[in-house]
Order: sequence, then structure tokens, then C-alpha cells
Amino acid sequence: MDVVEVTPSPEQYAYTFGGVAPLMRVRPGTAMRLWSDDAFGGALRSVADLSSEKVDLRFVNPQTGPFYVEGAEPGDILAVHLVALEPARDWGASAAIPFFGGLTSTDRVATLQDPLPDTTWIYELDRVRNTVTFVAGSSDFSVDLPVEPMLGTVGVAPPGGEARSSLVPERFGGNMDTPQMRAGTTCFLPVFVEGALFSLGDGHYRQGEGEACGTAVEGAMTTTLIVDLVKGGAPAWPRLEDDTHWMTVGSSRPLEDAWRIGQVELVRWFGELYGLAPMDAYQLLSQITEVPIANVVDANYSAVVKARKSLLPRASAYGGLHDDLRARAATLR
Amino acid sequence: MDVVEVTPSPEQYAYTFGGVAPLMRVRPGTAMRLWSDDAFGGALRSVADLSSEKVDLRFVNPQTGPFYVEGAEPGDILAVHLVALEPARDWGASAAIPFFGGLTSTDRVATLQDPLPDTTWIYELDRVRNTVTFVAGSSDFSVDLPVEPMLGTVGVAPPGGEARSSLVPERFGGNMDTPQMRAGTTCFLPVFVEGALFSLGDGHYRQGEGEACGTAVEGAMTTTLIVDLVKGGAPAWPRLEDDTHWMTVGSSRPLEDAWRIGQVELVRWFGELYGLAPMDAYQLLSQITEVPIANVVDANYSAVVKARKSLLPRASAYGGLHDDLRARAATLR
Amino acid sequence: MDVVEVTPSPEQYAYTFGGVAPLMRVRPGTAMRLWSDDAFGGALRSVADLSSEKVDLRFVNPQTGPFYVEGAEPGDILAVHLVALEPARDWGASAAIPFFGGLTSTDRVATLQDPLPDTTWIYELDRVRNTVTFVAGSSDFSVDLPVEPMLGTVGVAPPGGEARSSLVPERFGGNMDTPQMRAGTTCFLPVFVEGALFSLGDGHYRQGEGEACGTAVEGAMTTTLIVDLVKGGAPAWPRLEDDTHWMTVGSSRPLEDAWRIGQVELVRWFGELYGLAPMDAYQLLSQITEVPIANVVDANYSAVVKARKSLLPRASAYGGLHDDLRARAATLR
Amino acid sequence: MDVVEVTPSPEQYAYTFGGVAPLMRVRPGTAMRLWSDDAFGGALRSVADLSSEKVDLRFVNPQTGPFYVEGAEPGDILAVHLVALEPARDWGASAAIPFFGGLTSTDRVATLQDPLPDTTWIYELDRVRNTVTFVAGSSDFSVDLPVEPMLGTVGVAPPGGEARSSLVPERFGGNMDTPQMRAGTTCFLPVFVEGALFSLGDGHYRQGEGEACGTAVEGAMTTTLIVDLVKGGAPAWPRLEDDTHWMTVGSSRPLEDAWRIGQVELVRWFGELYGLAPMDAYQLLSQITEVPIANVVDANYSAVVKARKSLLPRASAYGGLHDDLRARAATLR
Repeated sequence: MDVVEVTPSPEQYAYTFGGVAPLMRVRPGTAMRLWSDDAFGGALRSVADLSSEKVDLRFVNPQTGPFYVEGAEPGDILAVHLVALEPARDWGASAAIPFFGGLTSTDRVATLQDPLPDTTWIYELDRVRNTVTFVAGSSDFSVDLPVEPMLGTVGVAPPGGEARSSLVPERFGGNMDTPQMRAGTTCFLPVFVEGALFSLGDGHYRQGEGEACGTAVEGAMTTTLIVDLVKGGAPAWPRLEDDTHWMTVGSSRPLEDAWRIGQVELVRWFGELYGLAPMDAYQLLSQITEVPIANVVDANYSAVVKARKSLLPRASAYGGLHDDLRARAATLR
Repeated sequence: MDVVEVTPSPEQYAYTFGGVAPLMRVRPGTAMRLWSDDAFGGALRSVADLSSEKVDLRFVNPQTGPFYVEGAEPGDILAVHLVALEPARDWGASAAIPFFGGLTSTDRVATLQDPLPDTTWIYELDRVRNTVTFVAGSSDFSVDLPVEPMLGTVGVAPPGGEARSSLVPERFGGNMDTPQMRAGTTCFLPVFVEGALFSLGDGHYRQGEGEACGTAVEGAMTTTLIVDLVKGGAPAWPRLEDDTHWMTVGSSRPLEDAWRIGQVELVRWFGELYGLAPMDAYQLLSQITEVPIANVVDANYSAVVKARKSLLPRASAYGGLHDDLRARAATLR
Repeated sequence: MDVVEVTPSPEQYAYTFGGVAPLMRVRPGTAMRLWSDDAFGGALRSVADLSSEKVDLRFVNPQTGPFYVEGAEPGDILAVHLVALEPARDWGASAAIPFFGGLTSTDRVATLQDPLPDTTWIYELDRVRNTVTFVAGSSDFSVDLPVEPMLGTVGVAPPGGEARSSLVPERFGGNMDTPQMRAGTTCFLPVFVEGALFSLGDGHYRQGEGEACGTAVEGAMTTTLIVDLVKGGAPAWPRLEDDTHWMTVGSSRPLEDAWRIGQVELVRWFGELYGLAPMDAYQLLSQITEVPIANVVDANYSAVVKARKSLLPRASAYGGLHDDLRARAATLR
Repeated sequence: MDVVEVTPSPEQYAYTFGGVAPLMRVRPGTAMRLWSDDAFGGALRSVADLSSEKVDLRFVNPQTGPFYVEGAEPGDILAVHLVALEPARDWGASAAIPFFGGLTSTDRVATLQDPLPDTTWIYELDRVRNTVTFVAGSSDFSVDLPVEPMLGTVGVAPPGGEARSSLVPERFGGNMDTPQMRAGTTCFLPVFVEGALFSLGDGHYRQGEGEACGTAVEGAMTTTLIVDLVKGGAPAWPRLEDDTHWMTVGSSRPLEDAWRIGQVELVRWFGELYGLAPMDAYQLLSQITEVPIANVVDANYSAVVKARKSLLPRASAYGGLHDDLRARAATLR
């Protein structure tokens, strides 16, 4: 199986979902290896690089793409199966950007207080031990943390002629910022425009749930994926599947609405998977869901609602596409 | 080590934190075995028992207690170490109570829509296989689910002369409804009144994160615990510790505020545990926290913020009290 | 008509709704003149008096009461008609209390930022011109503002055995902090306990909608009122009536839920007043309601939903009780 | 003074802010008379016309525009002074659209409940009496209401390459849905792109604050306005001025964040107008602001924060532009 390799030049970076001409056309079933820059466009390289000086917040989360998927029409489902995520630099960066993040006032949670100090942390990558190192700025504490690569951002063009910032998660996917978006996961996205126009970026070498300070261990990433298409049947919101879980992602404000969206969407999916009536799916899921918060920092907050497959009878979604993609992925390496 | 056994009669049930005379006085270090009724006071015993007919919503979540802990003063920390949770009946019940729950309008998320159908599910307990069985009401689907006992409610009397419903989680603990409140966990609560006046109840044979429909697999429970006291140093909000995680629980509305509370409290705790400055703790926790939603259905919503000990240097809280309680608990069985 | 005069001593102040023994028993129809201390208990008397030094936040909003209304039973309606509100001191005080207010992080909207500066403003009262004077702390700006006296807090004992801080608004009324609570207004409150146990306090010489900084021009107040009782028919949430408007007050978090509560309650009231089906009342009110925010700073936020009587056919509530109370009030002066 | 007249054809309607080529170029100072269709594109003409059958929700709130204002650059302020708003049809329509509105679950406040009944109300306009008539669907109640024309939507192209649905209010203005957007008001909008690209639409013959059911008395409108430009000094969020009030509009979720945005923006404006330090402006505004909710139904909620000029020393914004526009407007009729 051939792999299409794409490394965009900075002038090719996309900063919105929608509103950008496709970088390339691909057929369903194509395997791709995409290089994506980090959320800061590589601007933070030492703790002396402050986000207020080095980062233009109108141009963050550069996307690699968008890709026009042939045959994709509104109402279809785009499947993006993540095969491998590999750090593309030897360091990651994180920052407390003034008035951005979860434990500070922001342009929306507006207060009259001073911002938190503009601070940058650099995480050196140890490829042998597969760790990144947190080094405290105000004491001599440091700790090695496992690399657990993920993508903050995977999405398609939104409906209704909108173009949305790559900082925003919504029903089109986008900046959902969940650690579930990792190798082995298949992301099912509703298609809203001809060609779907998917893109991705915002690689994280690791991230806690909630992404509290607003930035993860941000790093350039090489993502290997297979893109595929299911005709018709688009879900209302993104769904994820991996070998262990059925998952949905809701994104809105306040956070309970993000959760509601995800929980309702999983009720719907369980209707499809198990023929459960909504009240029965509501009840069953009430007793089994795992609900890790994804982010509480973006323009919309995101929550993931998960059901563990091992608790449930065997079922398959979209003709067993996830298993099929896993098998195809195995031939890539 | 002796164990004090308490099985309250129905007229001894408490329905508030605060405002209730102590049921008993205990010394710090006491082991107790407490029987608690289920959230419905045992009123739902078949799928024909509807909550609108059988349950008086002013009297749910009956508490066993409160217990006056000798020597406890405002500003101290009450430690409740859960040794064992054992289902005390052979069935659990769950219900979609009209206008109560996460995927319905409520008295607060007020709409003009009709309620969801008042529905009860009964879960038979299989003590040999340690499962409860979900049986769909509208199809022939059923599935056995592992019993994972937890307490919805552990709390102390609130500050300021308040008495709060046992349906409410707040800084005094209460109805946090997190699956983390299980055997092996130590719950550290701030003491607000002389004697602390802790109580517990609302046993769940299992519960999904979020407790979406508003009720878990509700069941009478026999809880073995050790209660202990730390003089001074009360945290602002409940903290939990088990063998694997440092945890905090925030409870408020909207859900992002529950999360903020928990995340800030864990930043503070990391200052105590590791000497980290707030900005450094903020950063480190941004990359490692696990944030399972606890409930999105109670009068306040709850979120748990967790940090995995195995990622971190060794540390101990409150003089290693959790480890000490684990050791003492081992002598109980 | 006789007027019962009550001036509590500081040790008689109540700090909760519920959980306090009645100060006095009164019959329905009684006229009362109640002195209430300011929210700070009179502790802030100059700009050098800082809330962090002078105010114990566990003891603010002292209530005058509670009063046991003879014959009041759960399910009844307590009517409190405000006849006159007169400033009882020659100055009012306002403060930016650290981590309290709407444009700062708080114990619930928790961030890691520093607090705003602890600041006090004193407003001198000019009884002749009926003004209070705002004097800027950081420049030579000052301006006289009309005195528009109101009560922040009017409420009854809550249901379910709860006792709630006098800082909290809820379905029992309490700290709703709306400028609508002024002379000429009748407040209809649901009765939850025998005797209703109403109290009031938190006088404001004036307040903007939202009470942005968390405190109004706080001042001791002499309130003349008539208390009355309607048997049965308790509304779910407080309702207000004056000569120009039908009003409801919802209190919750987030603010949209406070609004939803008020809007639904007014839909219900319009069903009673005009026989409108819920969908028709929903539609009509969508085109005519005025919705001033009351407060965005208390433990629950409050929104008022108002319908202007002059737009509508003539109607009367509770047997025309408001008009009747207006007439009786006229005999008091 | 000449007036440029524009009546777009349906194929010229714009449905987003941003992402649309300008309909026309105009110079600052131009007077315009713009016809705009109603929110439903005129599709609801009788109570038998249901929104679920007649309205494509991807194409609502058609905008007239956008207009490229010569010389407008990012960072400038666009002033849109509304001179006159005249109903352009003899009827208005309102609808309870399934899963849209404030007292129903929605695609974001997601529940499992059934929708409210899809219902349409038609309001006949009486030009002589200047009223529209509400006619109940389920009883024989009807009432004439004064026409108070306003525009739901006035906005410019957003920053960052975004294109946003005309259903969304944000810092670029858009669907703020406030009754303050009426004849005599000057709306100051930040310019984000060359030419500003402003458009308007969504005329309402009247609307209650909150726009509870999601739709006002929707009607085609003829709007006379003067557009002008202030170089530099763009505010963060829309500001409004009329003869009586200084106003700001915040739009976000939850509703308290919309309020926070507006309140902070008015603090900033008072710094400009009166030289007040932020803490002093915070205090003063806490005692004088009026805060009518605008809408609780759109993709973002909106709140207006107002300060009454008559309470304050005389001040002028942007060189007295509002007064100047009022004078110029007087020459138009």
C-alpha cells in the first residue's frame, strides 16, 4: 500500500476549517503521512521565548491540509484512521499565554484581574526512553513523562458556508484536544461539503485531560493515517472508535452542554449498534460510560463519552470499518 | 481492632448534612461497619415501581449518621478510609425520574417539554459472578455488568450554620457521585463544625461517570471504614487518595467551574506535596491530569481531577496517613 | 392600622434562611416596620475600612427575623408587600471584596490569578436631595446618584430541612439582589414550613442590575411592610407584582438557567392570569418580556422576567391582593 | 444628502459574516436605505406554514450586504447609525422551531425529550395604529402590541479568516438580537478586515428581551442608516450609543460570560469617557448599570450593559460622532 507524503511549507498552512482551497485531492482508502507544525508554528524554542512576543495568536494551530476526498458528499461519513504518530522534533513547548487557558480569566471569562505571568516551558524529548522532561521554572523539580502522542485537531469543513478557526472544536471536529486522538483510533466525521476537506494538526507529545493551561506539550508531528469514506449515515457529531471503546465527542459551552451532546450522541449510536430504544440506551450508558474531559480552554469546551467494548456484546459499526482499517494499517509498517 | 457496627432504623435516617443531631460519638481511629439504605429508601423493587408513585423526592439519599468525631474542630481534616463496600441486598434499582437527570430538562434547566417516561430498571445481583444484570425494557437485550461498589455520598456538616440536602455536593463533600469513592480510597474532608458530623449513604453497585440518567445501580450497602483526624491544615475542597492517584473533587455549576475548583485544589496540593510554585504545578498538571466527570445531574455538578502517582516522584500527604490506614485496614479482615 | 416595630440587637441577627428560631409570631395582615443592618454589619465606615480586615464573610447579610406567620403551611403563599424603604444611616458602603464579585475570579470561578485590590467606597447620603455620592478613589471624579432604596434579601425557610446562607438566592427567595424589591412591590413566596419563617435584610440605597462588584450601596434600612397569606396555590419560584409589571425571579447557575426558571414561571403565571396555553404564553412573552439581570455575583445568579401590565388586558392575581395591599398601605402613612 | 437604496434579490442574500464578496462599495458618510427580508426568507405567511416544512435552517437570517466601506482597515471603528426602521410588509411571523429556542432542549442543550410542537403565529400589522396583533392558537385571546422595530443582526466580517453564520453573535456583532438596535442608535463595531464588510438583516417588528422562543415578530424591513468610519481605536466588542445611554453588548456562553464581556467593555469605555481607573469604573457601574438580556437562544447568548447618560457628567465618544450623526440624520427626512 502506497503512502502519500505531505510536508506543507509555512505559506501552505491553513488556519481555518472551511474557507481554504484544497491542498490535494485523495481517493478514499489512501494512506498518507502528514507532517504538521506545532501549535505555535515552531516559534517557542526556549523558555526565553514568550508567547506574547513570539506568537501571533491569529495564526496558531496551523493545519496540514485541507484534503479533498473524492466522492465525499454532504451526509457521508469521513473515516480518518490514525496509524502512527511520531514526534517530528526533539522538543516540545508549552506556555501559559496571557488570558488564555483554564485557570485564568480570558477574553470570554472576562475579569479585571492581571494576567498570569507569561511563561514558557520546554520539554526535551528522549527518543530512546520515549519520554519528555518537565523542568520546573521556579524550583529544581523535574520529572520524565512518557510520550503519548496525539493530535489536538482533526476536522472537516463546517456546514452553512462557515469557516472556523483551527482553535475551535465543533460538530465538524476541529480542535477537540482529546488524548483519545492517537494511533489506533478511527475518527468518524460528518461530511458537510463536497470533498469533506479534512485537515489536521496541533500535535501533542502528551496532554492531560482538560489541557488546563491551554497548551499541551506542543510538538511538530508526523502522522500516518488512512482516510476512508462511508456513503450516507453521517452522525450529528464526531465519533471515535478504537479497539477498546465506542466514543463520542461533544463540544460547546458551558461544559455540561459538551457532555450532553456527547452522551446523547452515544445514546443514538447504541440505538444503531444494539437496537436499544433511547430510554434503554440512556439507562445502560448511565451505568457504564467513562467521561474524560478533553479540554476546558478552547472557544468551545470538549468532553468525550466512552463505552468499553469488553462490557458489551460484540457489535460493529459501519460494516466493521475500524477493524478493517486496523488490518490495512498493519500492512503499512 | 474492634469494629463499631451501625444499622440505622428508618426514623434515624438523616436527609441533610448539618442540622441533624449526632447518631453516635466516635474517637479518631475507630473502625466502623455502616449499613446504609439505597437512595430510594428501598422503595423501588420491581420495574412496576415508578419513582413518581413510590418515592418522595424530599426524602431520598438517606444518610447513615451523622457521627461526631471527638476532637474534630473547624480547620481540621477528617479522613474517611473506605475499607470495604459490600452490597447489602440482592438487587439494585435505577430510575429515570421525571424532570431529573442529565438528558432531560429539570427544575433548573427549565423547558416547556414533556418529561421523559417515568421508568424503573431492576438489576439482579449475582454474588458468585459478582455482576448485576441490565435488562432492557423495550427489547430483549440484556447484559451482565461487573459489580463495582461505591458510595455516592460522603460528607460533613457545612460551614456557616447551613444544612444542605443529601442530594447536594459541595465543599463539605456530600453527593459527589464519583466512582472513585470505593474501597481503598481515603477521603480527606475539611472540618467546619465541632465533631465534623460526617455521614454517608447512597450506595451504588456500579455507576458510569456522569451518572447520566440521575441514578446509578442504587443499592443498600455495608461499608467498612476507618475514620481518622488530622489536626489543622484543612483543604478548601475534598481530596481523595488511593494507592495510584492524588485526587480532588470540585462541585458547582456550570460544570467548568466544578473542574476549575478541582484543578486549582490539585495545584495547591502539589505545592504541598512537591514544593512546586503555582505556575509550575499548573503546567505539570496540564500534562498529566486525568479528569473523569463524576456527575452532571445533582444540584451541583462534580468533576474529579486526578494525578497518577506512578508518573511522579514519591511523596506523602498528611504524614503518610493513607498508607497507614491501608495497613490498619488490612488487620480488619 | 398598627405597625409592629422591630429593631434586632446584633445577637439576634440571623444568617440563614431556615435553622433559626422565630424572633416573633405575627398574624397575616400585620404591618411591620423592620430595621435591618447593612450587609457588612456596619463594619465599613470609611475607605480605610477594608473588608478583608473588618468583615467576617461567614457573617454577612444579617437578617431581621425570622417571623412566624400564623396559619402559614407548606403549599401556601406568603405575600410581603413593601410599603416604604428608608435609609437608616447617613452613609452607605460598597467594597470590592477579594475573590468576590462578577469581574473577578472567585472560590467557584477559580483561577490562579491575584485578587483585585481590596477597596472600599463610602457614599454619603444627602437626605434633602435624596442622593448618595460616588467618589472615585484614584481620581477627582465624583457624582451624585439618586437614592433608590431596595432590599437585597427577602425570603422564607427552604424546604427539605435545609438551612441556607443569607448570601444565597433560591426558590425560597433570599439574596435575589434585584432593584425590583422596592417600595410598592408585593413579593409572593412559596411557603415550605409551618409559619413560613420569613426574614429580610441587605438594604441597598441603590444598586445597578447585575450588582457587578458584588456589593451595592449597602446601608442599614427601615422597611415598612404588610405581610399577608394566601392559602394554597404556591408558585414554584418567587413572583413579584407592582403597579406596572408581573414579574418572576429565577436563581441558579449558569445564568441562562436562572433566566429559564423565571421565563417558565411567567409562562405558568400567564396560564393562570389569562388562560393561555403554554405554547401561546411562550410566544406572547417572547415578544413582550423585559429581562433585567438581578445579580451575577451570589452563590446563585438571579434574573427577573417582567411583563408590562399596560400591554395586556386587565387581570388580577390572588384575588387582587396586590391592589388590596396598596390600599391598605396607603392608610399607614 | 443622497440616499443609496439597495433591495437585494434572493440570490444576493448573504448568510454569513465574512466569506462573501461585497455587494457594493460605499464611502464613509454615506446614507443608505436597505431592504432586508425576514429571518425566514418570507416563507412563513400563515399559521399553516410550519418552519419544519417551509424553512431550511441553513438559510435563515438573510443579510443585505456586505458593504465594503472605503478606507476601513483592521483596528478602525465602523459606525452604523440607524435613522429609521420601517416594516416592509403588512405582517410579521414568529415560530416555535423544533429544538430551537430558550425553553426547549436544542442541538446543544441536548436531551432525549420530544420537541415542542412546531407552531407558527402570524402578526397582522396595523399601520395606522402602529400595532401588531398577537392571536393565540389555543384560545380566543388576542392583543394588540405596539410596533417597536429593531434589527436582530448588524455586523462586520470577523477576524482570522473566519466566516460565521448570520445566526451567531460575536465580537463582530452579528445576531445580537437586542431591542436596542433601533432607530436613533449608533452601533460602533471593530473593523477586522479591509472594507469592514458590514451587512444587516433579521428585522423584528418587536421582540421581548431574551427572545425566549427563538424568534421575534420577524418581518421584512426598510432600514435607513448612515455609515461612518473612525480611524483606529477599535473596541474589543460592539458598543452602542443613543441619546440616553452608553451601551456595550457581550455575546458568549454561558450567559454570565456574555454579561462579563459587556460589563468589562463598559469599564474600559468609562476609562476613555471619564478617565476613571478600572476599579473606580467597576464600582460606579456596579451601582448604575441596567442589564437587559438580549437573547438566550442563539449560538451565543447576548447581554446588553447600559449606563444612563443623565446620571453622569457630560461626555462624548469618538469626537461626538453620535450627536453629529443624529444631526445629519435629521436632514434625511
